[in-house]
Amino acid sequence: MKRSIATVSLSGTLPEKLDAIAAAGFDGVEIFENDLLYYDGSPREVRQMCADLGLAISLFQPFRDFEGCRRDRLARNLDRAERKFDLMQELGTDLVLVCSNAAADSVGDRQILLDDLSLLAERAGARDLRIGYEALAWGRHVNTWQQVWDLVRHIDHPNLGVLLDSFHTLSLKGDPSAIAQIPGDKIFFVQMADAPILAMDVLEWSRHFRCFPGQGEFDLPGFLAPIIESGYTGPLSLEIFNDGFRAAPVRANAADGFRSLLYLEEKTRERLLQQAAPAPVLEPLFAPPKASDYDGIEFLEFAVDESQGAKLTHWLERLGFSKVGQHRSKNVSLLRQGDINLILNAEPYSFAHNFFEAHGPSLCATAIRVQDSASALARAVAYKGQPYRGLVGPNELELAAVRAPDGSLIYLVDKDAAGKPFYESDFNLNAASTPQAGLKRIDHMAMALPADSLDSWVLFYKSLLDFEADDEVVLPDPYGLVKSRALRSRCSSIRLPLNISENRNTAISHALSSYRGSGVHHIAFECDDLFAEVSRAKEAGVPLLDIPLNYYDDLAARFDFDDEFLSELAYYNVLYDRDANGGELFHVYTEPFEGRFFFELLQRKNGYAGYGAANVAVRLAAMAKSRSGAARQAKL
Amino acid sequence: MKRSIATVSLSGTLPEKLDAIAAAGFDGVEIFENDLLYYDGSPREVRQMCADLGLAISLFQPFRDFEGCRRDRLARNLDRAERKFDLMQELGTDLVLVCSNAAADSVGDRQILLDDLSLLAERAGARDLRIGYEALAWGRHVNTWQQVWDLVRHIDHPNLGVLLDSFHTLSLKGDPSAIAQIPGDKIFFVQMADAPILAMDVLEWSRHFRCFPGQGEFDLPGFLAPIIESGYTGPLSLEIFNDGFRAAPVRANAADGFRSLLYLEEKTRERLLQQAAPAPVLEPLFAPPKASDYDGIEFLEFAVDESQGAKLTHWLERLGFSKVGQHRSKNVSLLRQGDINLILNAEPYSFAHNFFEAHGPSLCATAIRVQDSASALARAVAYKGQPYRGLVGPNELELAAVRAPDGSLIYLVDKDAAGKPFYESDFNLNAASTPQAGLKRIDHMAMALPADSLDSWVLFYKSLLDFEADDEVVLPDPYGLVKSRALRSRCSSIRLPLNISENRNTAISHALSSYRGSGVHHIAFECDDLFAEVSRAKEAGVPLLDIPLNYYDDLAARFDFDDEFLSELAYYNVLYDRDANGGELFHVYTEPFEGRFFFELLQRKNGYAGYGAANVAVRLAAMAKSRSGAARQAKL
Repeated sequence: MKRSIATVSLSGTLPEKLDAIAAAGFDGVEIFENDLLYYDGSPREVRQMCADLGLAISLFQPFRDFEGCRRDRLARNLDRAERKFDLMQELGTDLVLVCSNAAADSVGDRQILLDDLSLLAERAGARDLRIGYEALAWGRHVNTWQQVWDLVRHIDHPNLGVLLDSFHTLSLKGDPSAIAQIPGDKIFFVQMADAPILAMDVLEWSRHFRCFPGQGEFDLPGFLAPIIESGYTGPLSLEIFNDGFRAAPVRANAADGFRSLLYLEEKTRERLLQQAAPAPVLEPLFAPPKASDYDGIEFLEFAVDESQGAKLTHWLERLGFSKVGQHRSKNVSLLRQGDINLILNAEPYSFAHNFFEAHGPSLCATAIRVQDSASALARAVAYKGQPYRGLVGPNELELAAVRAPDGSLIYLVDKDAAGKPFYESDFNLNAASTPQAGLKRIDHMAMALPADSLDSWVLFYKSLLDFEADDEVVLPDPYGLVKSRALRSRCSSIRLPLNISENRNTAISHALSSYRGSGVHHIAFECDDLFAEVSRAKEAGVPLLDIPLNYYDDLAARFDFDDEFLSELAYYNVLYDRDANGGELFHVYTEPFEGRFFFELLQRKNGYAGYGAANVAVRLAAMAKSRSGAARQAKL
Repeated sequence: MKRSIATVSLSGTLPEKLDAIAAAGFDGVEIFENDLLYYDGSPREVRQMCADLGLAISLFQPFRDFEGCRRDRLARNLDRAERKFDLMQELGTDLVLVCSNAAADSVGDRQILLDDLSLLAERAGARDLRIGYEALAWGRHVNTWQQVWDLVRHIDHPNLGVLLDSFHTLSLKGDPSAIAQIPGDKIFFVQMADAPILAMDVLEWSRHFRCFPGQGEFDLPGFLAPIIESGYTGPLSLEIFNDGFRAAPVRANAADGFRSLLYLEEKTRERLLQQAAPAPVLEPLFAPPKASDYDGIEFLEFAVDESQGAKLTHWLERLGFSKVGQHRSKNVSLLRQGDINLILNAEPYSFAHNFFEAHGPSLCATAIRVQDSASALARAVAYKGQPYRGLVGPNELELAAVRAPDGSLIYLVDKDAAGKPFYESDFNLNAASTPQAGLKRIDHMAMALPADSLDSWVLFYKSLLDFEADDEVVLPDPYGLVKSRALRSRCSSIRLPLNISENRNTAISHALSSYRGSGVHHIAFECDDLFAEVSRAKEAGVPLLDIPLNYYDDLAARFDFDDEFLSELAYYNVLYDRDANGGELFHVYTEPFEGRFFFELLQRKNGYAGYGAANVAVRLAAMAKSRSGAARQAKL
């Protein structure tokens, strides 16, 4: 399909926007009137700029408050339209968006609406221009696509057609399915916008909270599918009013927009396939290689130097890991426990080394187990992911990899080739070294991200890897709020809670400033007997995050625990949560390693599926206290 | 009255909050349960900390989902209550907030509610504790104060009383007037919160958008007046859930909270006076000296050094100002035009010099004309304003002054003493120098503020000076959004639009970073014939902000102007706005002085009262273009 975006969706001056739109791969652009008004160049210059960039001007917008206007204003409104038609002809676009009248003094009489729109269509037709008529959700008399189609069908003028915008229908919980019955050539234009579901005034919601498809909660494939069925062949265009987008880096955001349309097309294709739509209907939609099933995390790779590597090894050994291998040719070691493989990379002149130089000790790569790495990589590249090829020495397996949004790597490791063959080809394995403790697998990895990058991360994982995103949770830190949104692979073998904070002094903001960018916040290891693991860790000298006794007094008030059990929880600083279905979580946190990332040990019972959100506030408060203690010590 | 605040209203750890609450002058504190849970010390230690700070623990809160709970949970809920009663006794407080049950499975049967609350009152009474029962706006069955009072009256237990929270009543548009009929001693506690009027889910609104009295839009005097009439003598307490407050500097925010209660008391006193309430009823309420009437701005004082002073003088002379005086003993000069006096202060070892060192060339003082400077200063001090006394040399008048929130000074100049006497005592006036141009008075001064300080500024001007605040307007900059809220003296002789932006690259954020703090953004001068003034300014070489021609094409489409008039507007870069009543604004902007503040020349017609909000976006876009041009030139 042709892909387009409205200039209002992006930040910057008009030339900056157009550059970014062309670079992202769009075919066309909607010129939002204000972007033109504020630009210090003529419409003809804008036309030339677009032509030079290979962009069609697919639409000029908006033209407001026309049909059903107060009768004494009609002539003036027609003059206004002619002025804008002049401008469109200079711009070189033939289509204008006319949105339904929202003025309190407008009239809803059907015959007047028919007359006014006929008149406008006639005027446009005389100049070979076309009118796309759109229902605003807050239109005074016309606010559904059904009303628009009724008027357009009745007038039956070749220069008047329907303009559809997903937000205006889905925000009012409208049903798009019958759009399939509109003849495709009477749909002149389609705008796609997603949004979180918010209980608020619809105009405010529309003006400030729209987002790219896949970042919100609307069923957009359910909106687009009937449009495709109608035979519509025009562009799919993004019109996103979003306060954050108005300030976001324009190139990266335009690239996200393009990716979001690809994602929407894939999901719409899946929807149409379920409905057994014939192949020619599906043909225009983006069709990347199918996403993989996943089978958890094969290994995590940490960027360290010699000294930090030794410290981290010591930390991990106290957590029960054993060093089981040394790389054949590099300064890289392998630690293992249960199904968990951790690689510490201190090799100079490597990707990890560059990462260490930029961020200090940090997680620089995550290897996930896929069914077919070649296909997984092809999918990532089709979604404009950046593939990575590292140095490969003798005896080393080459791993397919793609860059995550923070610049770290995601290795795509073939499920069947995983485990033995990979480690044996790269490492000298020490069979004698058997881990003694009982941590079994990586449960989740939590990330700390800059506040404005959350949507971009969500879209990356949803599209390239076909992950799902849980709802956002808002949690109090003593110095502000933390927002968390968890991504997970279908079947949940990989879980990735993403955390942001708009406040300067929270745990998340401290992590960000320590990494000079986004980075891993903590890594959770699952086990079958938390008390055994935490007791072993405590004896080995792992510093555990201290939980206030008042927390346990409150547990006593909330749950029916005996005092002995509560004392044990308190002694080991174990946090507890129970879900509505009786699922239980026992979990404990370490102090951070070098003031950066930390570890969580956890045990899930009876299908507990969350992350202990009820305990995040007490954990953040304990972390704040620990930070201020560390800061005091550093001062002494 | 006793004044109190809930710990949840502030940022930080429990000890940080308590310190700030005591320093601000509060008598008591509500301990929010989570603040205790997350604190690493026993309830007894918290009790001692409060005692050492001279703070009463006025309330422990909240106890949730009790009355009408599922019958199989009642015994467990009573156990939970007893645990919390233990805790209260350790804390040394006798009052607990019980909020109405919000659980979906709770029951609303009146007899059950009566039974449950009686049982709880009985249990509390056995320990000499008291229950304050509060209606949550989203309570499942009980959500008004009338229902609460009905239950409390019927049970008639000495340990059960009404707890009132302004938000829960006013968010549902409830009527508080009949509260006056409740016996004052049956109201156990009063929480005051303001909020902006938002069309959104009431729970979300309550949890994230409350603010201090005077910062929002609720009629809080209308809520408090009947409470005072009831004979209530307990504390007035602030319970403010606000995302910004959770991250705000705790000391400054607590001080704002205290000031907001004083303001509320003054306004409630005025309300009760209007209702002819007897004097003893008014007695407990804060009664500062009455606010002044104002008569505009007497002068503005700029902090400069020799070189910047010469440049600014040259700038102002091109705008038609004349240097009419030189200070008798200081390096300070006076420029004048019409009713406008501008003082340029380059005196070393002065307040202005310190201000210049900190902020560069900037506005360091504003002198406003008041009826009685002594009384105005006393009022400011009663509201915890910081008075200022500067150096005074021979022949100099001493001016009363108070610090504005940005550290600049607000001089309070006696209306009758203003003008001649002041300038004659301080300056050698040059009678020969008569300004030639026609700027008449200072129309407004716009400020650029850090995003999180807007509420604090609003409260400062509302309380110390009794200014009014217009509604907030949101305006697009090419690189984000700008929010503007105008303050003005009653009768509008002084106007002060405040501007903030949460985005890094907007004009407002650039101004902030150039000032290293808040500062004046632009100063608007009013005249009777804008075209005459702008033509004179243009000839004199004043650099005017260039407005794109496309803006004038759009004016042509919107208004019935002839081409010649439009050309004149465009030639002089004059912007135009018209309000619904036919009021008209003509205005023009200069380029910024040294990349910092700039000037606006304007003419109001037919009672136009705004600031040209319709033209702010085109002005911000032109400023962005001008900045990037300046940046390009700086690079060459």
